[in-house]
Amino acid sequence: MNRTLTMLAAMTLAAPAAAQAPSLEAAARAALESDTRAWDFVEGITTEVGPRQAGTEAEARGRAWAAAWLGRNGFANVAVEPFMMDTWVPGDVARARVTAPYGQDLTVLPLGNSGATPAGGIEAEVVFFRTIDELRGAPEGSLKGKIAYISHQMRPAQDGSHYGFAGPVRWVSPGIAASKGALGVVIKSVGTDHHRNPHTGGTTFPQGVSPIPAGALSLPDAENLERMFARAGGRPLRLRLEMNPRQIGRTESGNVVGEIVGTNPSLPPVLLACHIDSWWNAPGAFDDGAGCAIISAAALRVKEAGQPLRTIRVLLAGAEETGLWGSKAYSEAHLDEAIAVGIESDFGADRVWRFDSNFRESNPALHQRIAAAVARFGVSSGNDIASGGADLNIVRDQKGALIDLQQDGMRYFDLHHTPDDTLDKIDPVQLRQNVAVWTMVVGILANEANSILTGGPIPSAPPIMESK
Amino acid sequence: MNRTLTMLAAMTLAAPAAAQAPSLEAAARAALESDTRAWDFVEGITTEVGPRQAGTEAEARGRAWAAAWLGRNGFANVAVEPFMMDTWVPGDVARARVTAPYGQDLTVLPLGNSGATPAGGIEAEVVFFRTIDELRGAPEGSLKGKIAYISHQMRPAQDGSHYGFAGPVRWVSPGIAASKGALGVVIKSVGTDHHRNPHTGGTTFPQGVSPIPAGALSLPDAENLERMFARAGGRPLRLRLEMNPRQIGRTESGNVVGEIVGTNPSLPPVLLACHIDSWWNAPGAFDDGAGCAIISAAALRVKEAGQPLRTIRVLLAGAEETGLWGSKAYSEAHLDEAIAVGIESDFGADRVWRFDSNFRESNPALHQRIAAAVARFGVSSGNDIASGGADLNIVRDQKGALIDLQQDGMRYFDLHHTPDDTLDKIDPVQLRQNVAVWTMVVGILANEANSILTGGPIPSAPPIMESK
Repeated sequence: MNRTLTMLAAMTLAAPAAAQAPSLEAAARAALESDTRAWDFVEGITTEVGPRQAGTEAEARGRAWAAAWLGRNGFANVAVEPFMMDTWVPGDVARARVTAPYGQDLTVLPLGNSGATPAGGIEAEVVFFRTIDELRGAPEGSLKGKIAYISHQMRPAQDGSHYGFAGPVRWVSPGIAASKGALGVVIKSVGTDHHRNPHTGGTTFPQGVSPIPAGALSLPDAENLERMFARAGGRPLRLRLEMNPRQIGRTESGNVVGEIVGTNPSLPPVLLACHIDSWWNAPGAFDDGAGCAIISAAALRVKEAGQPLRTIRVLLAGAEETGLWGSKAYSEAHLDEAIAVGIESDFGADRVWRFDSNFRESNPALHQRIAAAVARFGVSSGNDIASGGADLNIVRDQKGALIDLQQDGMRYFDLHHTPDDTLDKIDPVQLRQNVAVWTMVVGILANEANSILTGGPIPSAPPIMESK
Repeated sequence: MNRTLTMLAAMTLAAPAAAQAPSLEAAARAALESDTRAWDFVEGITTEVGPRQAGTEAEARGRAWAAAWLGRNGFANVAVEPFMMDTWVPGDVARARVTAPYGQDLTVLPLGNSGATPAGGIEAEVVFFRTIDELRGAPEGSLKGKIAYISHQMRPAQDGSHYGFAGPVRWVSPGIAASKGALGVVIKSVGTDHHRNPHTGGTTFPQGVSPIPAGALSLPDAENLERMFARAGGRPLRLRLEMNPRQIGRTESGNVVGEIVGTNPSLPPVLLACHIDSWWNAPGAFDDGAGCAIISAAALRVKEAGQPLRTIRVLLAGAEETGLWGSKAYSEAHLDEAIAVGIESDFGADRVWRFDSNFRESNPALHQRIAAAVARFGVSSGNDIASGGADLNIVRDQKGALIDLQQDGMRYFDLHHTPDDTLDKIDPVQLRQNVAVWTMVVGILANEANSILTGGPIPSAPPIMESK
């Protein structure tokens, strides 16, 4: 065969393939320009389902909705994997009112695992702690009969690191105050906005310490309370607090899974994670409807670029917010099934700006290949060691490969765990950039024949996951 | 006396006066750089009082607080002038839930003058009107047994003109729907933000039409409802609505007045207006704590520049929001006391950017003098004919002189009549610019010996004031 014929043959072979399957690059570019599936997912779940509190019928509706969406859009092996969990519900009363020396209602919501007040509420003097360290320094028993108020100075941070800075005020200060005898606790919401929406979220009480009523004030209300302290000039400030959350025992939740089956399903799959549940007060657009939308849309884009070598599995975890129940259940059920690499999307829908892995030193060629592929989308290669998201317990338990596609977090804690976490906050252009970046990364990994992790440090989960 | 002695004598006379009384320009400059009184007023009333619903004990606390502030800060003739009004209160239940074809709670608040639902609520099919004109076109009786939902497309506008564009949806559409047989109404909030805070505000029902339950949905909830219509594909959308507002009959409200007495109190005074009340859900920082803060701080700055020729009277009106009760009562009680000129501050705390009067053509010298004096603060001279604010009924009734100091309205309808109308929204720098501009304008007017209005058109009140 002469050279012209060889070329013609190659063109003949290539042309239909190109028509049927765009390159990965072309698939990512198409996602950037015109993806509508990610939007359809997050619009659909926020419009047709809304808030999805873990362990409740609302989460079950979300689960069914998501499984139907995956099946309808071309995923194989779609399944719901149920598990049982301890379920806390917020009740329907949440009121706070300063009764002296001024009179004014404050906007409050209970924290997950909060205890209830008696009907009619409690009323007590408030003790003001500017920081959690001040609270830690309070003498034992000094809060007996009092309500503690704990503040912080969280600011927006692109990498979300102020959540680790201020988060302990929510995660552990109610337990500390309870152990010092407090009757109740209110905290400044762990958030960065100035709207009258308290940020809820989980808190934990130490072993042997009974949960007390623990609520979050909206940021404007917390600042107003602090101004009242300043204006009261030492006069005692009294608060009436009424909330009726409760533990309702074991209920069913579940994980939703689906697959793009690879040409060699015996290879360990690529696992993409997000979570289905949201707090009862939050429609869960940013947290985490968008994450499920991004991973699902990207998996479908990779499929369109040609059947991948490895299977791509999506894990839409249940009950993440109230204690990573789905993540733990999935790891327990599947620990002996090796995962090639895990990636999670659970930080809103703003653009990816940095890429980290836990194999940069042990497998620099692959790390560099991914870095080069995402650079075109404005994503730099970072030096952090990826630790994966909350729903990747199985990968951490297997000491496997992890990638973090860091999203811009400047707005995230304006919305986190509030009623304002609604669809309108999602910028379709940035959402599509996420899908494009994920398409490139997942496509490369799902077509990688070699083992991805070849040694190197495996970090444990960040402490914040213990009390998400 | 030779020339040198004359100059020395003049300097001797001038120097002590200058030390005691800065020029008006210097007083305005000092306000711009370092005024703290306006901030103290608005911080105080939002911290120590909070929301101040017209006709209630909360407004009475606001009135007492404001009178005490004026007295403490150097106003003379501080008084409360009580009047009686018809009082509507919002109740303590406001719930909306879409029950079919999806299930999701919507955030709702009653509009002022709304009727109540029976206990347990009403449930009915929703009829979607994209515009008030669509509602107007609906056949008589066509809404029998239905709930009407009315939308609009309000956008932020610096001059606030989109309030006139979208406002009728709140002011009159509930009455139109009621007259066509509707069981209830929900509207898209008349606002420009995307937070889960409905914007309340007054509505009116025509003579002979019984008030029906009328609520405002937050903007994100309204948009979600519209998406539900789109996704429902023609299936009926049903809403459950429960609210328990009520009319409680005649109660007492009052206007707070105070004066900087002029050297010639027989001249008609300069009247500066604002309002004390706010909706029950709104702490009233922008609307209108800031306005009362600005006019009061400016009057005190003018006083510091030397006793003015004319008396400056501040009118902190009661019960503006629910029907200009204070404005009407003040005009009725004082109509025979001529006012030289009226100015009102009731559009937040962002900077003044334009100055209008109703004497630009009839008294161009004075108009130009004011324009030249405020130009240094970034305030242009506009071509509109000033119509005064809601609480200047007396000046309009007297066909007197009016000035509008137009504030930047780009953020105003993000906050208007919502719980987000809190102190943190006020930019201290822009607040001080307001005080500086007002100091210049009020200082010039209070030292003007001649009659200010020398003919020219007197516009009637803008239609929006009828249903503020």
